[in-house]
Parts: sequence; C-alpha cells; structure tokens
Amino acid sequence: MDSKYVIGIDYGTLSGRVLLVEVASGRELAVHETYYPHTVMDEKLPNNGTPLEEDWALQHPDDYLEVLRRSVPEVLRLSGVKAEDVIGVGIDFTSCTMLPIDAHGVPLCFKTEFSENPHAYVKLWKHHAAQEEADRLNEAAEAQGQAFLKRYGGKISSEWMLPKLWQILNEAPEIYERMDRFVDGADWIVLQLTGQFVRSSCTAGYKALWHKEDGYPDAEFLRSLDPRLEDLFETRMRGHVSPIGSKAGELTSAMAKITGLVEGTAVAVGLIDAHAAVPGVGAVKPGQLVMAMGTSLCHMLLADKEIHAEGICGVVEDGIIPGLFGYEAGQPAVGDIFGWYVEQGVPAYVHELAKAEGLSMHQWLEKKAAAYEPGESGLLALDWWNGNRSVLVEANLSGLIVGYNLLTKPEEIYRALLEATAFGTRRVIDAFQESGVEVTEIYACGGLPERNRLLMQIFADVTGREIRIAASSQNTALGAAMFGAVAAGSARGGYDTIVEAAESMVKPEKATYLPKPENVVVYNRLYHQYCTLHDYFGRTHLGIMKELKALKLEKSS
Amino acid sequence: MDSKYVIGIDYGTLSGRVLLVEVASGRELAVHETYYPHTVMDEKLPNNGTPLEEDWALQHPDDYLEVLRRSVPEVLRLSGVKAEDVIGVGIDFTSCTMLPIDAHGVPLCFKTEFSENPHAYVKLWKHHAAQEEADRLNEAAEAQGQAFLKRYGGKISSEWMLPKLWQILNEAPEIYERMDRFVDGADWIVLQLTGQFVRSSCTAGYKALWHKEDGYPDAEFLRSLDPRLEDLFETRMRGHVSPIGSKAGELTSAMAKITGLVEGTAVAVGLIDAHAAVPGVGAVKPGQLVMAMGTSLCHMLLADKEIHAEGICGVVEDGIIPGLFGYEAGQPAVGDIFGWYVEQGVPAYVHELAKAEGLSMHQWLEKKAAAYEPGESGLLALDWWNGNRSVLVEANLSGLIVGYNLLTKPEEIYRALLEATAFGTRRVIDAFQESGVEVTEIYACGGLPERNRLLMQIFADVTGREIRIAASSQNTALGAAMFGAVAAGSARGGYDTIVEAAESMVKPEKATYLPKPENVVVYNRLYHQYCTLHDYFGRTHLGIMKELKALKLEKSS
Repeated sequence: MDSKYVIGIDYGTLSGRVLLVEVASGRELAVHETYYPHTVMDEKLPNNGTPLEEDWALQHPDDYLEVLRRSVPEVLRLSGVKAEDVIGVGIDFTSCTMLPIDAHGVPLCFKTEFSENPHAYVKLWKHHAAQEEADRLNEAAEAQGQAFLKRYGGKISSEWMLPKLWQILNEAPEIYERMDRFVDGADWIVLQLTGQFVRSSCTAGYKALWHKEDGYPDAEFLRSLDPRLEDLFETRMRGHVSPIGSKAGELTSAMAKITGLVEGTAVAVGLIDAHAAVPGVGAVKPGQLVMAMGTSLCHMLLADKEIHAEGICGVVEDGIIPGLFGYEAGQPAVGDIFGWYVEQGVPAYVHELAKAEGLSMHQWLEKKAAAYEPGESGLLALDWWNGNRSVLVEANLSGLIVGYNLLTKPEEIYRALLEATAFGTRRVIDAFQESGVEVTEIYACGGLPERNRLLMQIFADVTGREIRIAASSQNTALGAAMFGAVAAGSARGGYDTIVEAAESMVKPEKATYLPKPENVVVYNRLYHQYCTLHDYFGRTHLGIMKELKALKLEKSS
Repeated sequence: MDSKYVIGIDYGTLSGRVLLVEVASGRELAVHETYYPHTVMDEKLPNNGTPLEEDWALQHPDDYLEVLRRSVPEVLRLSGVKAEDVIGVGIDFTSCTMLPIDAHGVPLCFKTEFSENPHAYVKLWKHHAAQEEADRLNEAAEAQGQAFLKRYGGKISSEWMLPKLWQILNEAPEIYERMDRFVDGADWIVLQLTGQFVRSSCTAGYKALWHKEDGYPDAEFLRSLDPRLEDLFETRMRGHVSPIGSKAGELTSAMAKITGLVEGTAVAVGLIDAHAAVPGVGAVKPGQLVMAMGTSLCHMLLADKEIHAEGICGVVEDGIIPGLFGYEAGQPAVGDIFGWYVEQGVPAYVHELAKAEGLSMHQWLEKKAAAYEPGESGLLALDWWNGNRSVLVEANLSGLIVGYNLLTKPEEIYRALLEATAFGTRRVIDAFQESGVEVTEIYACGGLPERNRLLMQIFADVTGREIRIAASSQNTALGAAMFGAVAAGSARGGYDTIVEAAESMVKPEKATYLPKPENVVVYNRLYHQYCTLHDYFGRTHLGIMKELKALKLEKSS
C-alpha cells in the first residue's frame, strides 16, 4: 500500500500556510505560504477607501480562499504526492475572527450593496472596537450572577463573538438584519470545502460562550442585554456544535477542482490556531503548558479538572484534547511589540550598524541586548501595547516603559520589551498555580522561539523553568494535519484518536533552555516591581490608562 | 566721548559664548562661541582613557580658558570696538560646577600626578554620583532640624557643593588633602581674570548653603557628618563672599595680553548662568518668573518675602536682584530629553522624510506633532530622564512613558515629551503658588523658545498663562554684561545698579504665546493624571524607580 498523507492549513494573521505530511511518520514533505493580498485593514477599506475608526481590524475573506487556490496545489506539486494519497485535511484559524454570511455561505462583503460597509467584512481577532459592548455584557452577566462568566475568568473579551456581533447590531442593523449567520473563520473554510455547516466545539467553547453540558447563555439573559438579541442562538448563531477530532464532511467536487485534491477527502472540524499547536508539539498530558508565540502569545494548559481562575480566558472540556480540560490564556501582543519597536523606535544609526554587520535589525538588537545582564538597563516595561487579555482582561490598557535616562540605548529598550513579555507570561502561570492548576512542563512553538534565542533564555530565566522548543517549525499546521488524519480514521489509513496521532507524528523537542540561577534571582526582584505596576495600572488606578485612551478616542474622532 | 562697551561671558554646558554690547543702548555688536574641546566627559577621561562610572559628568578647565583665548579677541575683532572702550566684564556659569585648585589657583587636574584621577577634574552640574552623600547629608540635617534645610525645600541636591566635595573626601582623600580650595567655575574664572579670590553671593547662596545673615552651616553639624569636614569653611571653602552687583577686581596684565582687553578693566562678581538671564530679559519686579530653557530648565522667581516651599531648590536674599528674594527651581533635563529622543529613538524613515523636505529632525517632528490636538496621542510622560530637581528633589528618579500602542508614531512620542516638560514646569509653579509666592508674569529665554514654537504654545496651554519670549537671543550673556557695566559703575561710563542697567539695556519681548482655552481644558485633565503619576512614582512608590536604578548600578559596575 502507498504511503498516506494529510494536509494542515494554518490561517494566521498575515498569511495562510499549508503543510503536507506523511501520516505514518509525521515527516513534512512540503509547505507553502500565501500572504493575504489585503493584509490587515486597520485604516481604510480596500476599494473605496472608507476610513476605519481607531481600534478596528478587518480582513477580506477572499484572501482565505486565495490560500486554497494557491498553496494547496503548490504543496502537491512541491511534494510530488498524488492527490488520491491525501486522506484528510485539517484547518486552524486565528480566533476570534468572524464574518457575516448569507444563506448560501457567501460573505456579505462580497455583495456590491455592502462593499462599502465595514461591518460586512471579517472582524479579525484583534478588532477592539466592541469594548463598549463587552463592558455592558460583563456588567449584566456579573449583576445577574451568570454562571458562564466564571469559566472565562470573570470577563468576556471585546475580541469574542458576542461583543463583535452586538457591535454590528448597534452600528449596522442592516447588516445584522441581512446576515443569515455569523460564522467563525475556521468554520467558514470548512463550509467552503465541504458544503457542510458545522460549528467547532473549540471555537464555540472558547469564544462563543458554549458549554458541553450547559449549552449557550439563555434567551432571558440575551433579552436583558438587548431584546433584539433574544433569539441569537436560534438564528445568526444557530448550527450544530461538533466536537473537535471528528469529521466535518468531505471535499466537494467544486473544491476538488480548485485545490487539486480528490472529491470526498475527509475534512476535520476546524480549531483555533493556537490550540492546534498543542498536539502539534506532542502535549497531551495534564500539567503541560504550550506557548504559541508569534505576533501574539497564546498559553494553552491541559488539566484534569475544571477550576475558575482569575482572568483565564477560557476553560473548555474536550476543547483541545478529548478527556482533558483545556485552559486558554494569552498576551495580545508579543512579536507585534518587537516589530513596532523596530519600525517606529530604532534610530537610523542602528540601521547603518546592522547593515554593516550583515544583520537584520532584530538580529543586531538581539546580539547587543544579549550582552546585558538582567537589571542592567534600568528599564522595566508593561507589555500592554495591545491591551491585556489575561488576568486583567482589559483592552483599554496600554504599554508603559519606566526607567529612561539620557544614556538609554535602543538595545536596552529592546531587551526591556523582551523581558516585559516574559513577565506577562509569568503572571499568567502564577494565576494558574495560585488557582490550583499545576504547570509542570512548558513548550514553546511558533516563529519567535526559532528566531530569537535571547527571548527564550529570558523566558526561562523569568519563569525559572525549562522551556522546550517544538521539533517542527510548522507545528500549528502539523496539529491541524493530525486532526485531518483523525477525521480520515484508521479505516482510511489515518488514526482513530489525536493521542495516537501524536505518538506517531510528533518528534522530540529540538532544543531546551534552562534557567540560569543567578538570572532567576534578579528577575524575581524585577518581577516584583512588574507586579506592583501591573496592579497599580491594571487594578487600583486603571483610570489613568482609561482616561488617556478615552481622550485619544475623543480627540482623534 | 566715545561710546562705552561691556562684555558678558556665558559659560554653558557645551560651549562658552562671549557677547559685546553697547552700554548706553544694550545694542549687541558681536558674539562669538567656543565649543569646549573635551565637551562633557561622562564615559572616560581624555588622555589616558580612565573609564568613568555611571552618573559621572566631568569637564576640563582648560576648555574654559580656551573661551577667553579665542572668543574675547574675536568679539573685539568682529565689532571693531577699541579695547580701551570696553569698561567691564561679567561672567556667568553653569551651576553647581566646581573644581579643586591649589594655592596658586591651578586646577589639580593640570598636574601630572593627578591627571588620571577623575576627582581632580571639574565636576559638572549634572555629575550625579554623589547621591549617597546627599542622602546622608539630608538625613542628618533633617534629624537635627537644621534651619538651612528649609531654605532649599527640605532637600539638598546631589549636584551641590557639599555632596560633591564630600564624595571627593570619601573616594579620593588624596585629592581632598592636596586641594587648597574647592571653587565654583564662575569664581575660578574671576580669579583667573583678576588674581582676586572672591566667592559670589549667588553661587554661595544657591549651591553652598551660605545665608546672608546666618552664614554657613556650623562646625558641629559638619562634624556630625564626618569629623574630617569640621573645618571645611575655614579651609577648602574659605573665601570672602561678595554680593553680586559688586566689582570682584580688575583685569591683570597677563590676562589683558591673552584677551586683548586693557589691564584694569572692571570684572564683576560672577553668577549662575540662569540667574544672569533674569535681568537680561528685564525682570526686576516681584511675581516675575523667568524660565531659562536649554538642555535643562531653570525657573527663577522674584519675590518680596522669604517663604519655604516644598522642593524649591533655593531662596537667596539679594541672590538675583538686590532688595528682592530670588527663588530658584528647575528641571534637570528639557532640551536634553528631546535631543536624546532624536538621537536614540527616531526611526530611519523619519530621517528620510525630513531630509526630503529639507527639514532638521526636530523641525520635522515639531511640524508633525503640531498637527495633533492635546490628548490625541494617548501618551503621557514623566520628564525625569535626569531625575527631578524641584518639588521631589531626587536624582534617582527616571523617565516614563505610558500609553503606547501598536500604532504609536514618533511624532506622538515627541509631542508627549514636550508636554511632559510643560507639566513639570506647571508642577513647579503650583508649588510656588500653594506656598503663597505669587507668579504673575512668565518670561522664557534660552535657545529652545526661539527654535521650537510648538513647545512654547504647549507651555502656554499647559500653564494657562501668557509666555513672553525675551528680546535678545543672548540674554544670559547680556545679563552678565550688564553686571560688567555695574562693576564699572557710572564714574567709568557704566551704571550704579542693575535696575538702572536693565532700564536702558533691555528691549521689550519679541513674541508672546497666549493659551488657547480649548487646549487648557484638555491639559487640565492630563495634568491631573501627570500629578497622580508624579506622586505615585515620586512619593508613595518611590521604591520602584530607586530599585531599578540600584539594580542598574549593581549590574553595570
């Protein structure tokens, strides 16, 4: 019998990446990436240039289809694998990224009459303009003692389904009226591939307030928010919730033509990109924490019990690995902060020096910053350039750097920014531990851990723990592909469970970073100060950052 | 009778500037500037490269003589004025800038055996390495209820005479032993010019704890600090204190040869640079506040009563204008912060854009920042890049920026830095007013008000007051020259009082900035937040910045 293969499609913030792997070994034969032609739309709409307000972040759904049209045929070509030997496809997606569609699954932004309406487009995960709706939702849920609130650390983020959908209702009722459903990006791609409308237990559980036993929030609560929302889960959010690890459907003939795959190929229920990385690095046991590190950072922790910890974004039974509880937390900007700094804060002379040494700006800064000892810069930062998603769950927070003097150098600021993201992660780990959920092992995956060794050493030193770097640099797409193998099942040459898939398809970690005891001591002191600032700006004097943000919005509108 | 002329010599942080003016009219005939060859030594000593520790800032005294050798002959040449028509010379100097000399007035750093000892050099005003001595001094003075402490706002700065001299005693007792006197830069130049050793009431009063009626702190107090300091004011700090506005002596024949002036020319008692600007802009009445704005900012306020306000650096009777009390406060970094930002924080693309428009970086940033409304950047900064000299009087404080997000632009940061320095000034004005010392008029002088119109508008909007810009761009040197005219006296063609000199020699202001009511409203809101941060980091949680500074020193040593 010929070898069998599966494809994982990983939809990120800026591009979609397609990976083709061998089912038996996990061997990666080909990968291809398609950058979204419209990237992130945060200033204006594409064709007509309609300006967008502060805090908006949209995408164009045709960019996602472009990934299917270009990268799927490309991995077949690159690998030389025959389409009939590809037995399954798995999808993962940024989250919570959602769009309004009509009864035929067509995005409303494809329609001429709505092409100038920003609310007709995809609301990307980092669209933060629904904060008011999130605030009202949280107030009402808290006042009524709604049980679901506890599963999400006491706060619903403005990034999630309900605030985003409610914003559409408030600001563009004609779009709300016209949409047949509001759908997650992963579920929309599955619909495109199979013709089957299925909501994933992963996206529904983590972002749409669904619970395996309790279902969705009830109509009475929705009515108390807004009478027009009462029937939400029977109308715009209707749809069967299928558990991850199951098959969503099979490839249609139309999609077979477009992708070059065979009609009938198994397609798995989609899942959140970060969550796909968990089995992708081989984490399948309680106590294992996986950090998916890129523009942002997602923490995913497996546990054998359900506990409600402060500011943990979500706990979902069977949400990541069947039989376990999957906890999710995160930092909404990590690589994004470093990228912002390189673009907006690094002086011309550093460009010259880096060029002379043949290094990228990041490489030069990393090299220079690595020569410093912890504490030597005198700087300390709060990593809230894009708000705080865990522990505080507040999008109105902002970044801070303290300790500047007239001799402060760019490499010192760069190092302080790396350290701040590590302190942010330690704060999340502490929140888990304080709530009785143990963290015993830490894995890191994504682009950053491969590119920035200093960052990983700082994470080890700040957390005081060993950090393991995932074997595959495509482990998110690998995780998605593994779900594709499970959707196919053993009868078609795949696997029956994700645990079995992990045993065969994941290789041991390629590197580990051990904490240096002398650095741990210093970082404990700095972390103490970080926590003081964290609580001051995030709790007792939250008004400072909120007032600055409010003034900014008032003046820039 | 021929017209008579006077020369003012203004010793700044980076250069010395010599101005030649007509006595009768104040007309400026020539100015010449000599940049110090050794600039500020904050990393290493010149010849042998001995490295300097963090927070050190030294200068080379020969650089000051170079100004006499080059710029004085040059203004004679440029103006065509005959040496015999120059009737007086006045000196002003950065402060508190001091050096150890031998019995002949020779700086110890000129001697081969001490040329590798950093303590033999000039300690520039912004040398901040004597903080430990300042702390101990303040503790002892407070514990003993020393009366002098109140005149200086309850705290002696590490920049002043006693901490600097005590640091020498502690770290280089051989220098302390060898020095005949510790002398202020202004007084040392007067000594070079005249051969007369005279201490100025201005430098002694503001920086060496001297009081017109009470004299210096007593021996008992000094002994309590360190038994070796007991006889300080009879030994290293001995010397008659002469009131400003009087003649220190006359030009020696040796100096006449070097400068091209005539032997016997009157030389005035020197004074602090910032203070020379006060009569230089024409301020001679109670309630008038003068801001000397350059790398740092000095506030000088005239009043008819002595009150002890929190954190006001000094109040000296006859310290600036005879018959009035001169109050001093200040911000140790203003232009320095903007300069640091342009050098270390402005990205390459801004260089390109500024170049394409034919603008300097400051001009480009000012133009872009001016397009923003108050509050629109969402940023707020604490202007403590070089510590806080007034209200808090604490060198261990550091700069802070809060409100960063992923779209923050360089011009927004630039604007936030301008605003921060204006908030710092408003905090000082409030401290005066709260203590019952009225501020009725504000003048601005120095390089910054001429170069940066946005800065001055922000100062007007933040303080809610009209800001007048001094007529002369050389008003510090003009003030020094006016003291030269008073040293000569009416008998030689000068004036008998500084008030008379001001009436004839100072022109009306060249521009004024009026506060815009709509901006005042927004800045009141932001100032409220500034004060919250000010008190949090400067009072209740001072430990955060102190700990960062302590760690920095520990790790970089």
